[in-house]
Amino acid sequence: MKIFEELESEVRSYSRNFPRIFKRAQGEFIYDEDENEYIDFLAGAGALNYGHNHPIMRTKLIEYIESGGMTHSLDLFTDAKREFMETFREKILDKRDMDYRLMFTGPTGTNAVEASLKMARKLKQRSHVIAFTNGWHGQTLGALSMTANSHHRDGAGIALTGAHRLPYDGYLGDQLNTIEYLDKVLSDTSSGVDLPAACIVETIQGEGGVNYCSPEWLRGLSEVCKKHDVLLIIDDIQAGCGRSGSFFSFEEAGIEPDIVTLSKSLSGYGLPFAMVMFKPELDRWSPGEHNGTFRGNCHAFVTAKAAIDTYWSDDTFQQEVRKKGKYIADRLDKIVEKYGDGNFTVMGRGMFQGINCVNGEIASKITRAAFKKGLIIETSGTDDQIIKLLCPLIIAEEVLAKGIDIIEESIDEVCANIEVPEESDYFDDVTVNDTKED
Amino acid sequence: MKIFEELESEVRSYSRNFPRIFKRAQGEFIYDEDENEYIDFLAGAGALNYGHNHPIMRTKLIEYIESGGMTHSLDLFTDAKREFMETFREKILDKRDMDYRLMFTGPTGTNAVEASLKMARKLKQRSHVIAFTNGWHGQTLGALSMTANSHHRDGAGIALTGAHRLPYDGYLGDQLNTIEYLDKVLSDTSSGVDLPAACIVETIQGEGGVNYCSPEWLRGLSEVCKKHDVLLIIDDIQAGCGRSGSFFSFEEAGIEPDIVTLSKSLSGYGLPFAMVMFKPELDRWSPGEHNGTFRGNCHAFVTAKAAIDTYWSDDTFQQEVRKKGKYIADRLDKIVEKYGDGNFTVMGRGMFQGINCVNGEIASKITRAAFKKGLIIETSGTDDQIIKLLCPLIIAEEVLAKGIDIIEESIDEVCANIEVPEESDYFDDVTVNDTKED
Amino acid sequence: MKIFEELESEVRSYSRNFPRIFKRAQGEFIYDEDENEYIDFLAGAGALNYGHNHPIMRTKLIEYIESGGMTHSLDLFTDAKREFMETFREKILDKRDMDYRLMFTGPTGTNAVEASLKMARKLKQRSHVIAFTNGWHGQTLGALSMTANSHHRDGAGIALTGAHRLPYDGYLGDQLNTIEYLDKVLSDTSSGVDLPAACIVETIQGEGGVNYCSPEWLRGLSEVCKKHDVLLIIDDIQAGCGRSGSFFSFEEAGIEPDIVTLSKSLSGYGLPFAMVMFKPELDRWSPGEHNGTFRGNCHAFVTAKAAIDTYWSDDTFQQEVRKKGKYIADRLDKIVEKYGDGNFTVMGRGMFQGINCVNGEIASKITRAAFKKGLIIETSGTDDQIIKLLCPLIIAEEVLAKGIDIIEESIDEVCANIEVPEESDYFDDVTVNDTKED
Amino acid sequence: MKIFEELESEVRSYSRNFPRIFKRAQGEFIYDEDENEYIDFLAGAGALNYGHNHPIMRTKLIEYIESGGMTHSLDLFTDAKREFMETFREKILDKRDMDYRLMFTGPTGTNAVEASLKMARKLKQRSHVIAFTNGWHGQTLGALSMTANSHHRDGAGIALTGAHRLPYDGYLGDQLNTIEYLDKVLSDTSSGVDLPAACIVETIQGEGGVNYCSPEWLRGLSEVCKKHDVLLIIDDIQAGCGRSGSFFSFEEAGIEPDIVTLSKSLSGYGLPFAMVMFKPELDRWSPGEHNGTFRGNCHAFVTAKAAIDTYWSDDTFQQEVRKKGKYIADRLDKIVEKYGDGNFTVMGRGMFQGINCVNGEIASKITRAAFKKGLIIETSGTDDQIIKLLCPLIIAEEVLAKGIDIIEESIDEVCANIEVPEESDYFDDVTVNDTKED
Repeated sequence: MKIFEELESEVRSYSRNFPRIFKRAQGEFIYDEDENEYIDFLAGAGALNYGHNHPIMRTKLIEYIESGGMTHSLDLFTDAKREFMETFREKILDKRDMDYRLMFTGPTGTNAVEASLKMARKLKQRSHVIAFTNGWHGQTLGALSMTANSHHRDGAGIALTGAHRLPYDGYLGDQLNTIEYLDKVLSDTSSGVDLPAACIVETIQGEGGVNYCSPEWLRGLSEVCKKHDVLLIIDDIQAGCGRSGSFFSFEEAGIEPDIVTLSKSLSGYGLPFAMVMFKPELDRWSPGEHNGTFRGNCHAFVTAKAAIDTYWSDDTFQQEVRKKGKYIADRLDKIVEKYGDGNFTVMGRGMFQGINCVNGEIASKITRAAFKKGLIIETSGTDDQIIKLLCPLIIAEEVLAKGIDIIEESIDEVCANIEVPEESDYFDDVTVNDTKED
Repeated sequence: MKIFEELESEVRSYSRNFPRIFKRAQGEFIYDEDENEYIDFLAGAGALNYGHNHPIMRTKLIEYIESGGMTHSLDLFTDAKREFMETFREKILDKRDMDYRLMFTGPTGTNAVEASLKMARKLKQRSHVIAFTNGWHGQTLGALSMTANSHHRDGAGIALTGAHRLPYDGYLGDQLNTIEYLDKVLSDTSSGVDLPAACIVETIQGEGGVNYCSPEWLRGLSEVCKKHDVLLIIDDIQAGCGRSGSFFSFEEAGIEPDIVTLSKSLSGYGLPFAMVMFKPELDRWSPGEHNGTFRGNCHAFVTAKAAIDTYWSDDTFQQEVRKKGKYIADRLDKIVEKYGDGNFTVMGRGMFQGINCVNGEIASKITRAAFKKGLIIETSGTDDQIIKLLCPLIIAEEVLAKGIDIIEESIDEVCANIEVPEESDYFDDVTVNDTKED
Repeated sequence: MKIFEELESEVRSYSRNFPRIFKRAQGEFIYDEDENEYIDFLAGAGALNYGHNHPIMRTKLIEYIESGGMTHSLDLFTDAKREFMETFREKILDKRDMDYRLMFTGPTGTNAVEASLKMARKLKQRSHVIAFTNGWHGQTLGALSMTANSHHRDGAGIALTGAHRLPYDGYLGDQLNTIEYLDKVLSDTSSGVDLPAACIVETIQGEGGVNYCSPEWLRGLSEVCKKHDVLLIIDDIQAGCGRSGSFFSFEEAGIEPDIVTLSKSLSGYGLPFAMVMFKPELDRWSPGEHNGTFRGNCHAFVTAKAAIDTYWSDDTFQQEVRKKGKYIADRLDKIVEKYGDGNFTVMGRGMFQGINCVNGEIASKITRAAFKKGLIIETSGTDDQIIKLLCPLIIAEEVLAKGIDIIEESIDEVCANIEVPEESDYFDDVTVNDTKED
Repeated sequence: MKIFEELESEVRSYSRNFPRIFKRAQGEFIYDEDENEYIDFLAGAGALNYGHNHPIMRTKLIEYIESGGMTHSLDLFTDAKREFMETFREKILDKRDMDYRLMFTGPTGTNAVEASLKMARKLKQRSHVIAFTNGWHGQTLGALSMTANSHHRDGAGIALTGAHRLPYDGYLGDQLNTIEYLDKVLSDTSSGVDLPAACIVETIQGEGGVNYCSPEWLRGLSEVCKKHDVLLIIDDIQAGCGRSGSFFSFEEAGIEPDIVTLSKSLSGYGLPFAMVMFKPELDRWSPGEHNGTFRGNCHAFVTAKAAIDTYWSDDTFQQEVRKKGKYIADRLDKIVEKYGDGNFTVMGRGMFQGINCVNGEIASKITRAAFKKGLIIETSGTDDQIIKLLCPLIIAEEVLAKGIDIIEESIDEVCANIEVPEESDYFDDVTVNDTKED
């Protein structure tokens, strides 16, 4: 492990909490060099919804490589890309009556966000974009401007411009409907909030503390955007690809966003891949106006197609995810009840849930205890106080149960030894959040 | 091909000039669906220095996949990453007496540039960075600020801040040493050019028109940076990994940049991969301060290690590249001579050369003629007037010869039919440039 | 009047509503070329609290001019400046137990605001400043960033940076205490609202619609600023110099702002003059760091001293202002009552009050009717829907009565002919506002 | 003098070098409290071209005040304003065949600059403006962005955006025509210098070190601006109103700027006053889009009219200024010759000249010596190394001679005691400059 200390930058993060050399992985399990097995409740920070090294995708990938298929293709037409597009259209878009154009950006979420901001600003000829408290959108300068976390914002070393920040659903407690607030500042020409090109929002704020917005709020947001000629960008990078219980996280709300960003689990296999979807009438890009070297990662096209074929040809998978989501919710509710009101709280929805552990110190003790018991799990939120359950969606039920057992045991252990402080905040029912990442 | 027109965004670019569906590729050749063979003088915009699907790397990659090795690992410690780091230290750094820390960013060049700007700004607590005329550094907002091309800058839809632009080597003709100009504005507290955190520069400006700076200029730049406590960032994303005739493009100049960005050909196999190197004393990152989901693309670690083992264990490869570079220069010189002074000009160095064809219209005619003859080659420069030869470094000599033959024939054909206009510019010996990308 | 149309820019504004050539003025009266008399309820947009051409100040000014006293003095020491400072210290600062340094900026309000922002940013090494909805702080770029009005913001032609906008007292209705909201975003490191250098606020928003904040809100603001190490800037340019019922508008709240800006009525005579006051420990300016040619307008020093001597040697004047303020409030309440709830509303406090006339069209009809009857009065607010009573504080009681009579008659006339539409807004008790200026 | 130390901010500057309390002033003389007489070679930093308290203007001003004329008039039509406009049109514009609209801004130079930048940006819908090395345009945020001096720029505490800096005439020595450089970066779409809305330039850089540009350079600038559809703003605040030897400093070059800013000596009497002139077709302001409280300073209208009537009814005054300018040049040349090449150098033209004294320490010793002999004179330039002769234009010839005698004696004294170091700079014939102000 010495070479990491000697040669790798101090910027490394996950490796600090899980100081093992990992060697192989399969499904919901990771193995270290000494063949110790770990249940993976981190899942590549949401990039491994279908688990590690899925056998069907692996087979397809090896076949493709052995066939001499192109690996790197810039944005040239390739058969791998064509087949992905056909499958995506047939099994994702058409099934949902969605009419969108696809743009393949550099293969990371932050690049997809940058492209979406660019197109919105250029289309509307306005420089501001409204982003929300506790939002997380990436690390490159444009996406970072939209990201709320001050640890990351401060890293920029330059003023982050072009974002205006408004409160997310529930941020101001029950006292205020934050969509009405949005509507008011956009309606009032003397509000000092410049008319934005777009609003960018996550339906579930992973890094921001596993907060989620209600379908009503999302519909309100969509309506206010339409009313003021503002584009709505759903950043579905972490909540999309099934995590919420449907392929897109906004399906339940029944809205049609103008722009959608996808990445993380899109390739299905953990390979770098990102995409922006938008309404055809917004496709005013000039050729090459946003480009990049790795937009044609054919390995990702191959596994992404296989993932869709395998899991999204019918709604079986979706039903399973919802079932597991309900199981998680039930288990977490019970854990939380055990410790009484105002201490632990359940956050999130679908298979994107977490436990607010009051503060980061407690949460950290719990995750460290869990790691000793063979569970890899991370925290998020302003103070890292949220234990975030982000297991592969394909996890076996008994492994899911075992993972949650470990969490429960870890909480019990930690709570046996500490005095949980009472929470106090101005707004009774609000939980502030996040700080971490990906 | 219909699905591309119907579903893919208008932003697509390369596919417009090479409207075929490509299926497989090997070494310096690409094949379309109808098994037509093309010589590849584009090489993934510099990402395929070792050609397509190199057999050694392919074998290693398949072995790794079959062994169940981790694919996606965030920034966890993995054996794939360790082995890459060990090889990189032994065969690249130690051999050159270089002491640098490695930072694995999101797997694209633009992300590496963003990280390098961030660290420079934060370390120096200054927001400005000096970038140069015709420079190209990427498409995300921070990197785009450093990029000179107005087609891409205008796409931002927001003011690009934090860059001050100064003339590259030769930009103002022989009349002025642009390093002295730099020194003067940094020395003069009333120059209006704020003291920057860093200077960021490419040693060969690929997209900017295949301009290159002399070793003397680069040394001057390094000295002026040191004198004024300004960091020097070499963006070696396109010119690095052997393209210039040595692993790093700045080796000839004998300088030690503070920060170096690498990507494109770093994985060897065309897989998304990027890295920032910097002096150990600059490693003041706090954990996770710049992060991203795809920083642990283990497939890329595996092929990158294989590429270094194969080509950089001794200096055979380097010698071959230089030999081929000289061959290219000789051939291009002869072609240019045929058409007399002031018409065509040779640009670049190493295996990173081009022909300035006076204007974009002529250059475009030539590349289209070449494509009909089975050569894939692109243009760059302000007006797309530079035909850019960017073949795989591993190209067989006879294929290299054949590729240049095709270029020569294409030029002959085009010149038989057109009147080449005289160039006129304020500065006799300057060639203005660029516009394209990657 | 032809020369104005031919030669003066279209940017002119007040002259459009009062198309007369004015020749002389005295106290609360203005006279046009034809010797028509107008009661002045505009008062130089707040610059003429002591009326036009006050006889005592006039005498002092002429004496000074005739004595050969310096007129223009840069920031040299002059006896005129010394005498002003001594008087200001004795009769304004010492009497209120206030310990502040004085900085003489360029002689306009916007310049004082620019200086206050500069010092706050430099002292705290943070670039953001929190400004409030409907705030008005000036037209130069730094002050304009703080100004809410979109008509003026849009004029900038460049992104306005460095401000974050939060809701003023009452902006979100009774539903939310906006100070708690401020405290929350400053406490939450993932709120996305960067810790600011300062908050800048008007206690009465003249241009924003004659909204005012409660003393409790102001105290809360002061406390939250202290808690988070944020400076509090009170922009007292329009509400200061007695307009609110005390010399400084924040006296009632009992707070000690870190920085206070003064201008408009400070010279007493309508001469250009501006000043920034701040706590001695904040005086970290380096010599000449903020300067300007007209900081030593000695004529203004002379009249400003005379104004203080005349009106602030004891509290007689202050009592009169409060009495007149009460009279105005009573009269306006009665007018408003006549037209029933939800139609007209009274805004403001002290001698800084207005009537919200539902929309700009109605307000404009009323002010035009009033002008025909010999009253000069303007509107403010988002839609120019607020009739703003800004008469000289020294106005004779019978003239004040007459002016309000004219307003009442004008309203009666206008209301006899129109159907007043019902107001509808998300927030019951909120009045949105402003757009005009000065 | 104690009250200044106790109560006035440390930002004070001029008073530090001339620590006397000044009481009265007449023409080219200032008197302190003890009736010591000083020759004024500072002249209100250029605001007192007609000297202090000019008798004709004083008479007119007192008459106006006594007649009850309006003092403060916002932008209402007044007879004082009309008379100024008529005179300005007749004696300044028409005589020079100039067709411009007048805009009265807040009464300071920086406000006029802010208005000119605003209108340029909005008209061209581009946010960048090109400003030049060593330029000085003011202290409010927009103007400060254009100002080169780092002492002042650093004071902003926020990134200064919207300016691109290019070298002024001569800045890069004889090696390069900086207008060709400008043309090249504007012609090259990949130069990285965004097409600006305007170029803003002083014809003589007062604070930047009394550098001036040649008429040829200015014509070149005007042509390049026209060629690229870029507006040309001449900031004539310090060099205008006769200082250069004609009313506008650009008359000799024969150009027609799109926009001209005037202030400083425009009122003639040292009263705050500023104006922007622009071509009628650029008058696309909407009413009140740029406003301010003190735009109608009638006292200044009165004295400004008197100044024009007195000095610009024929060309007598202009001839006198040129004659004195020549006298100054001759005297300074002789002084400089005495000390040999490379030590002292003469800068500037007209009655806007200076002596470059190698470094700030020497210059400071000289001005301090001069003050003891009864001369008030200041330095400018990057290192305050330029002694700047800025006497009133109306100075009597014998007083001018006496003032220069004092300078010569002071130099002799200082040089008798010091070793003047050799200057060394990259560019032989360039003088770097400035730092001071106003």
